[in-house]
Amino acid sequence: MTPISTTQILDSLNWRYATKAFDASKTIPAETWAALEESLILTPSSFGLQPWKFLVITDKALREQLVPHTWNQRQVADCSHLVVMLAKKNMTEADVDQFIHRIAEVRGGTSDALAGYKGMMTGFFAKVTPDFIAGWAKNQTYIALGQFMGSAALLGIDTCPMEGFVPTQYDEILGLTGTDYTTSVLVPAGYRSPDDKYATLPKVRFEAKDVIEHR
Amino acid sequence: MTPISTTQILDSLNWRYATKAFDASKTIPAETWAALEESLILTPSSFGLQPWKFLVITDKALREQLVPHTWNQRQVADCSHLVVMLAKKNMTEADVDQFIHRIAEVRGGTSDALAGYKGMMTGFFAKVTPDFIAGWAKNQTYIALGQFMGSAALLGIDTCPMEGFVPTQYDEILGLTGTDYTTSVLVPAGYRSPDDKYATLPKVRFEAKDVIEHR
Repeated sequence: MTPISTTQILDSLNWRYATKAFDASKTIPAETWAALEESLILTPSSFGLQPWKFLVITDKALREQLVPHTWNQRQVADCSHLVVMLAKKNMTEADVDQFIHRIAEVRGGTSDALAGYKGMMTGFFAKVTPDFIAGWAKNQTYIALGQFMGSAALLGIDTCPMEGFVPTQYDEILGLTGTDYTTSVLVPAGYRSPDDKYATLPKVRFEAKDVIEHR
Repeated sequence: MTPISTTQILDSLNWRYATKAFDASKTIPAETWAALEESLILTPSSFGLQPWKFLVITDKALREQLVPHTWNQRQVADCSHLVVMLAKKNMTEADVDQFIHRIAEVRGGTSDALAGYKGMMTGFFAKVTPDFIAGWAKNQTYIALGQFMGSAALLGIDTCPMEGFVPTQYDEILGLTGTDYTTSVLVPAGYRSPDDKYATLPKVRFEAKDVIEHR
C-alpha cells in the first residue's frame, strides 16, 4: 500500500461540501461506483458485526416519491446514486451466529473454535437495552457515512449527508416496516450543479483551539 | 483538486484493520499528525454544528491510567496518538449562537442575516428530547471516526475504533464530569506492531449481496 500525500487528503476534504444542488444529467461511472460500494462493504464496525444494509437507489420514480419525505430537498432525486443507510433494530443470537459463520468461512476453521468470541458478543448484547442496541447500530452506520464521504471526495464525487427525512415514511416506502432494519441516514452522491452557490462559500469550522485539546 | 485512483482507495481500506498491538516505539511525524488533526476539524456534521471536541492524548502516564478502564486493552497506551472523541450532551441556544457567530465571521455578514437558519436549528432542538440530542451528537462523532480512519489509512497510519471502555471513568479521569461533553468513542493511531497476528488475517466482511441492495 503506497500512502498518498497529506496535501491530497486535505485538498479533497476542503473541496467537498454538503452539496445542495446536484447536476441531474451526470452519472457516476460504473467503475467508480463499484469502488464506492466496495468501500461501504469495507467499513469497520463494532466487533466487526456490520449491523447495516446499504440501499443504492437509482430508480428516478422511487426517488421522486421520497422527495416530499425529505423536507422537499431535491438532492435525493437529482443525485447520481442515492445511498440509504439502514441500521439493524436489534441483535439476536442468530445475527451473531451469522457473523461467526462468516468468520469461519473467510478465515477457515470452525464456528466452535470461535465460541469464546461469540460468547463475548452475546454476553455484551444480553447486558444492554434494546434502545442501546438500536443506537449502537445507528452509530455504526455513521462510520460508513464518514468513510464513504471521505472516499467519494478523494474520487472527485460530491455527496451530502442528510438527516432531514421522515424515517417512518422512508421505512414504509422502502418496504422496511416490520423488518429488522430501519432507515438511519441518507447520502446522495453525484456531481455538483454549476448553479449551486454553496459550492464556493468558505467552509465554516470552529478554530482548532475550540475543538482540539492536547493532553 | 486532483482525484486519486479507485485502486488507491481500496488498497488502503484493505490494508487497514483494527490494530490490536501497536509498536510503542514509533511516533507519527508531526506534519502527518497535523494533517490528521486538520481532517478532524474538516469533518462534516449535521447543520454544520460540530457538536464535539477531540482530545489528543500523548502523555504516557495518563494513557496508562486509562488502560484498566478500557477493558485492559493496551492500544490506548501503546499507540502514537490517542484521540478521545467527545460528544456534546445538550444543545442550547448559546451553542447555536456560537455557530451562527462563526458563520458570520468566516463568510462575512451579520448574525442577524442568519436569523432564519438559527430559527430552523433552535426549532429543531426544541422539538426533540434530551436523549435524542445526546444520541444525535454521538452520531456526529462517528462521522469523524469514519473519516479519520479512512484518511489515516491513506496516509499509512494504523488505527483501531474502540467502544470498549467505561465512559464514566473516562469522563472522571479526563475532567469531563459535570461539563457539557462526554466521552463518545476512542481511536488510537500509530503503527502496527510486527507481532500483531491480526494484521495478516483475511478481512471478514459479509458478501455484497447480503449488505447492498439495488433499487
